Amino acid sequence: MGLIYLFTGNGKGKTEAGIGMAVRARGQGNRVVFIQFMKGLPTGEIEPLKELGVEVYRFGTENFVDFKNPSKEDVELAHKGLEKARELAKEKPFLIVLDEINVAVAANLIDTEEVLDFLKTIPDETNVLLTGRYAKKELLDAADLVTEMKEIKHYFKKGVPAKEGIDY
Amino acid sequence: MGLIYLFTGNGKGKTEAGIGMAVRARGQGNRVVFIQFMKGLPTGEIEPLKELGVEVYRFGTENFVDFKNPSKEDVELAHKGLEKARELAKEKPFLIVLDEINVAVAANLIDTEEVLDFLKTIPDETNVLLTGRYAKKELLDAADLVTEMKEIKHYFKKGVPAKEGIDY
Repeated sequence: MGLIYLFTGNGKGKTEAGIGMAVRARGQGNRVVFIQFMKGLPTGEIEPLKELGVEVYRFGTENFVDFKNPSKEDVELAHKGLEKARELAKEKPFLIVLDEINVAVAANLIDTEEVLDFLKTIPDETNVLLTGRYAKKELLDAADLVTEMKEIKHYFKKGVPAKEGIDY
Repeated sequence: MGLIYLFTGNGKGKTEAGIGMAVRARGQGNRVVFIQFMKGLPTGEIEPLKELGVEVYRFGTENFVDFKNPSKEDVELAHKGLEKARELAKEKPFLIVLDEINVAVAANLIDTEEVLDFLKTIPDETNVLLTGRYAKKELLDAADLVTEMKEIKHYFKKGVPAKEGIDY
């Protein structure tokens, strides 16, 4: 049976672990779908994932989402992302990564119920990974495995800027 | 300046995040070295990482290490792993991942001091990631970024076995 994985918390490593799961699953010869929510800016992982045959889809603009007042475009893009997941789930891939979907829910782009409904319909052959901070309790409850990536120490706090090749 | 990253904790996602960091760094065109300690059994990530041009080295047997009484072979292999890291660091790669090195230290295969000495010699151009549970306080202190991957829920606890493509 397919399992539901969830990585949340305020520390570095959630998306990175999603990339790692995608790579490992591909390495065992499986079909992998990687859907990124709220991300429009280029990040280093996209091209290598595609090179390995991971099916990558991105639904986001280059701007930050205003949590208190998200734009219509942000809401539409997030729904398109979930719709893409629904559509591809029917083809029973081994793994679907929904990167940053927890944040998309927290930012009110998608309802928790919509994600729960999606999770109820995934085929037995398919595993799903939800990543992003601020995961709702209902999503934690729905997951078979939850890891909290907890920030113990981060150089951002010392004023060191984001590094290309590491943070994006 | 190169930074030191450390992923520890009892939850899933440490090695996966290391793979993700390796992939992202490669995607930005950087040289990446990925050294695995205590791992001899095949895992899904190795071939795709190599395919992307990540330089992968593994130092482990197929057997579990006895923490209380590690074999001479385990100790030697771990030292060879650290020696390889020292040797390649001189060539100033962008990222060196030392996967499971925290466990190798906890299992008394390598001394904390040996790792600290290595970290003191890394060139400014090189970032280092240490992964694995049971990280020693001295290593946490030496790192610029630390994330604790904390297990909130794991299906292993319900008796669900490790899954190919997910756990290895």
